[in-house]
Amino acid sequence: MGKFIVIGERIHCISPVIRKALSERDPGPILRRAKEQIEAGAQYIDVNIGPAESDGEELMQWIVKLLQENFDNVPLSLDTVNSKAIEAGLKVYDRSKGKPIINSANAGDRITNIDMAAEYDAIVLALCSKEGIPADNDERMLYCQEMLERGMSLGMDPMDMWFDPLFLVIKGMQDKQTEVLEAINLISQMGLNTTGGLSNVSNGMPKHIRPIMDSAMIAMAMQCGLTSAIANPCDQRLMETIKSCDIIKNNTLYADSYLEL
Amino acid sequence: MGKFIVIGERIHCISPVIRKALSERDPGPILRRAKEQIEAGAQYIDVNIGPAESDGEELMQWIVKLLQENFDNVPLSLDTVNSKAIEAGLKVYDRSKGKPIINSANAGDRITNIDMAAEYDAIVLALCSKEGIPADNDERMLYCQEMLERGMSLGMDPMDMWFDPLFLVIKGMQDKQTEVLEAINLISQMGLNTTGGLSNVSNGMPKHIRPIMDSAMIAMAMQCGLTSAIANPCDQRLMETIKSCDIIKNNTLYADSYLEL
Repeated sequence: MGKFIVIGERIHCISPVIRKALSERDPGPILRRAKEQIEAGAQYIDVNIGPAESDGEELMQWIVKLLQENFDNVPLSLDTVNSKAIEAGLKVYDRSKGKPIINSANAGDRITNIDMAAEYDAIVLALCSKEGIPADNDERMLYCQEMLERGMSLGMDPMDMWFDPLFLVIKGMQDKQTEVLEAINLISQMGLNTTGGLSNVSNGMPKHIRPIMDSAMIAMAMQCGLTSAIANPCDQRLMETIKSCDIIKNNTLYADSYLEL
Repeated sequence: MGKFIVIGERIHCISPVIRKALSERDPGPILRRAKEQIEAGAQYIDVNIGPAESDGEELMQWIVKLLQENFDNVPLSLDTVNSKAIEAGLKVYDRSKGKPIINSANAGDRITNIDMAAEYDAIVLALCSKEGIPADNDERMLYCQEMLERGMSLGMDPMDMWFDPLFLVIKGMQDKQTEVLEAINLISQMGLNTTGGLSNVSNGMPKHIRPIMDSAMIAMAMQCGLTSAIANPCDQRLMETIKSCDIIKNNTLYADSYLEL
């Protein structure tokens, strides 16, 4: 198994600083957050530009070029519900350091993003949902199958489809956590890659608890086979946990200095 | 599922302070370590008196009475290769707060400790080994079966046999960790309780790394179904992780204050 992959989540239009920088095309705050995340160990940087209905295509091209020119063609995850903006980003993306990620497709109205991934030889994050939250793992696995068949029928390498079971918030959906972990197990047993938005889990919890809860969840999810996550690489406890689980899973070789690597 | 059970490991004759206190029958250091562990959330206190060949019976009775009289009959795990000393301890043990634990039996020359557990209605930690470290999970499961049959044939409740797959040291046996976790999974799928000496995992690592590695391992093991561990309850990161995994597994109900409970 390869090392766990962290897709850094911190360039997100929900942050006021980032939202302002996006609208003003101000490189400073964006470059700072990218740098922090790369230095902290993120292999991919997610760029969430929001729906960006009016200027999404130009905005995505701007940020893709900005980040790749400044950080040696760092691999990116293009994150918006605006498919045209994703496609525009793919057109200027330099894949010398890794394929682009399309974030995201689902089994409903965003299933055509799988077609785009096939066309552009991209990785696609495939949400195991159609509308809203899947009721149970029967639904999750049905959607997983539907998307897998779609991708494979278009010639995709199944390894380029990273299935997202949908992490759920503990506050309100505590009794569903075991099911999400079981879904990761089921998908992993098919030999497939998995991912998810980890920080959903601890959403609404006191700030000091979130790294603790996220770390517990990532370790449990990695035991179930999780191969990547959209997460905050600047969360030191989380990254320590991921690196330790990679050691336990024998994905990386132990050295006393492994936390610094 | 019930809450995860921590058996506090810190009263152990390997510690010079404890060894001296045991040989001098000095209550101070023993009571201090018991208090710290109980306050930190240990449900059981392990008392490892070493082989204690000459005076084991009297010594075990002394420490059992000492701890139970001072801490409201705190449940204890009686830990020595000297079976006569364990039996002596069982004779003075007050079970009003929980059955005693016999630490430990195995499928080899210590299998008669299962007979003792049956006779005294005690819990027994059952090491899935015969001589040394089991070669693989076929061996582990064979020994598990042998011990389970022995206990059940003597009328034991299978829930009182806590099976220990033998946690192994990462430095030297990194490639065996996945197998240990898989053993916990296999035993748990039989509906049985599991346990183990967690700190073996990080043995020999730099001191600052041990809580990080132990916490990653406990979360992965709890995902596999681990129901208890012999561990250091004074390791704050470890206890935070255990409490968080109990939340994720829905063993305890989430509250913003759950780490303080």
